[in-house]
Amino acid sequence: MKIIVDAYGGDNAPAEIVKGAMDARNEYGCELVLCGNEGEIRRLFEENAFSFDGVEIVDAPDVISMNDIPKSILREHKDCSMAKGLRLLAEGGGDAFVSAGSTGALIMGATFLLKRIKGVSRPALAAVIPTAKKPMMLLDSGANVDCRPEMLFQFAQMGSIYMTEVMNHGRAATVGLLNVGTEEHKGGELQHETYALLKDSDLNFIGNVEARDVPGGIADVIVADGFSGNVLLKSMEGTVDMLMGFLKGILYASLITKLGALTMKSRFGGLKKKLSTAEYGGAPLLGVTAPVIKAHGNSKAYALKNAIRVAMETVNADVVGKITASVQKEA
Amino acid sequence: MKIIVDAYGGDNAPAEIVKGAMDARNEYGCELVLCGNEGEIRRLFEENAFSFDGVEIVDAPDVISMNDIPKSILREHKDCSMAKGLRLLAEGGGDAFVSAGSTGALIMGATFLLKRIKGVSRPALAAVIPTAKKPMMLLDSGANVDCRPEMLFQFAQMGSIYMTEVMNHGRAATVGLLNVGTEEHKGGELQHETYALLKDSDLNFIGNVEARDVPGGIADVIVADGFSGNVLLKSMEGTVDMLMGFLKGILYASLITKLGALTMKSRFGGLKKKLSTAEYGGAPLLGVTAPVIKAHGNSKAYALKNAIRVAMETVNADVVGKITASVQKEA
Repeated sequence: MKIIVDAYGGDNAPAEIVKGAMDARNEYGCELVLCGNEGEIRRLFEENAFSFDGVEIVDAPDVISMNDIPKSILREHKDCSMAKGLRLLAEGGGDAFVSAGSTGALIMGATFLLKRIKGVSRPALAAVIPTAKKPMMLLDSGANVDCRPEMLFQFAQMGSIYMTEVMNHGRAATVGLLNVGTEEHKGGELQHETYALLKDSDLNFIGNVEARDVPGGIADVIVADGFSGNVLLKSMEGTVDMLMGFLKGILYASLITKLGALTMKSRFGGLKKKLSTAEYGGAPLLGVTAPVIKAHGNSKAYALKNAIRVAMETVNADVVGKITASVQKEA
Repeated sequence: MKIIVDAYGGDNAPAEIVKGAMDARNEYGCELVLCGNEGEIRRLFEENAFSFDGVEIVDAPDVISMNDIPKSILREHKDCSMAKGLRLLAEGGGDAFVSAGSTGALIMGATFLLKRIKGVSRPALAAVIPTAKKPMMLLDSGANVDCRPEMLFQFAQMGSIYMTEVMNHGRAATVGLLNVGTEEHKGGELQHETYALLKDSDLNFIGNVEARDVPGGIADVIVADGFSGNVLLKSMEGTVDMLMGFLKGILYASLITKLGALTMKSRFGGLKKKLSTAEYGGAPLLGVTAPVIKAHGNSKAYALKNAIRVAMETVNADVVGKITASVQKEA
């Protein structure tokens, strides 16, 4: 399997991206295509004594940044590392694409360079979130601020296929609709109409779910418009950060507490790992014609390695083929 | 000052509500009107040897429950404890009203029995949320699922007055607009138009804020439509609950960790108190003609006592008068 990696996407590119990609090759045995400034990438390989086994480099000196407007990936930045990687994927030069670069540019680029799956109205960014039980998929998590009921219904279909095939090993994923209460009449028009569509479908729909119950792991898939999905995702992240900050303050408050903290050191490490988005590696962009994984902008090598693992799982489970078949069945 | 209390609102009514009201009277010296089943309330007083000093009872045997549709407060349940309390407030029989009962019924009842302040398009439920720094006000937190830009602008005005007068002792509260990114162009039409209104106002507007930065206390007032505001509020609560659960698991994992935990016991107590919504007591319903405070449905005596304190602060700061003046100035 060959994974195309945007070596220049994200806050810690290229050093951490390249290191993570090397770790993935060594651990998972995939082949890699690294897109970015070839001279600098070769220098990184030399400095770190990385082997070139199974590695190609596609020279792309230009980079699209967080500050560039997304659609510039089709114009001023049409030859940036992200655009070149996406075009290579579209041409069959790899099985999946991973980038930690600008989310907006990646969505724009994937939608226009790879194209949507026929019948999909809008691709969705499907964040994988740690919960008290097991990872959960939230979509859309920010690609589509304004949504129609049919879009939310397709998000439910696509997320359900992903979680059923990749995470649940075939057990039908449960689907919940994010709402301000659990009763059927809650929410606005978007929620009412989406509820009706989901209720009449063959998805494993469990009804409306409140944001309060999401961190407890109430469903495998949570469907929301991109605005409230983004609010949900980011407020969970921000709250974890706030609490971890408080916790650190308590554990390191004095010599005595530091001694006390020693008794729980490994357990706190386990908790940190459990809650770390780096474990899940990346958010699949579902609804385009080939697997695209968005890694967190602050990804270091470990997160990037896991994003490549997610890309490989997505390819192995043929998520794109199954979404295509499912959407065509509906049409 | 005389506070009217819905003695039969909430999961722990009437025992915890009455006890909390008694604690408030004893600590803050307010007078009370308790609405609810008079016979049962009198029995509670006898059982607990509470004094009737400064206490009136308004007999209201009917109760509106979480399962009743909100508008039934105007029809089938027009004489429930909540409705009687609101009517008494409207007639000047007290200075403020506190209820831990159904949010929907309280908003419906307050809007129609008390009426909106002239010029206010919709009352907002203004949740007070603990953050890493200091309490923050989020409005709307669930009363209005669909909002127009003018409504969000008024929420900003009302929240700003509350936080400036009650929490900041006169220092102008900072106002942030909840959005999916900090840049001016982020979000949908609602956010774009609201941003323009806020930017041109004399409010202390700091721009768009992301949900991730809310738990850190990025602004005194966060403005949002009721849907995403509700998602923000509840996901923070749910995430705190999840983490506190993990933490408990770690602290009580073994005899050794229990000994370690002893070194931090008081500090963990402080954290729990800091994050407890019971400390803040209640969410003011802003935009109606008299102070109404919604206490959390699961309020026990301590939370209810604090909700009465919030009601008294709202009266003392003349929040209703100041909102009235501000809205009329705009008109």
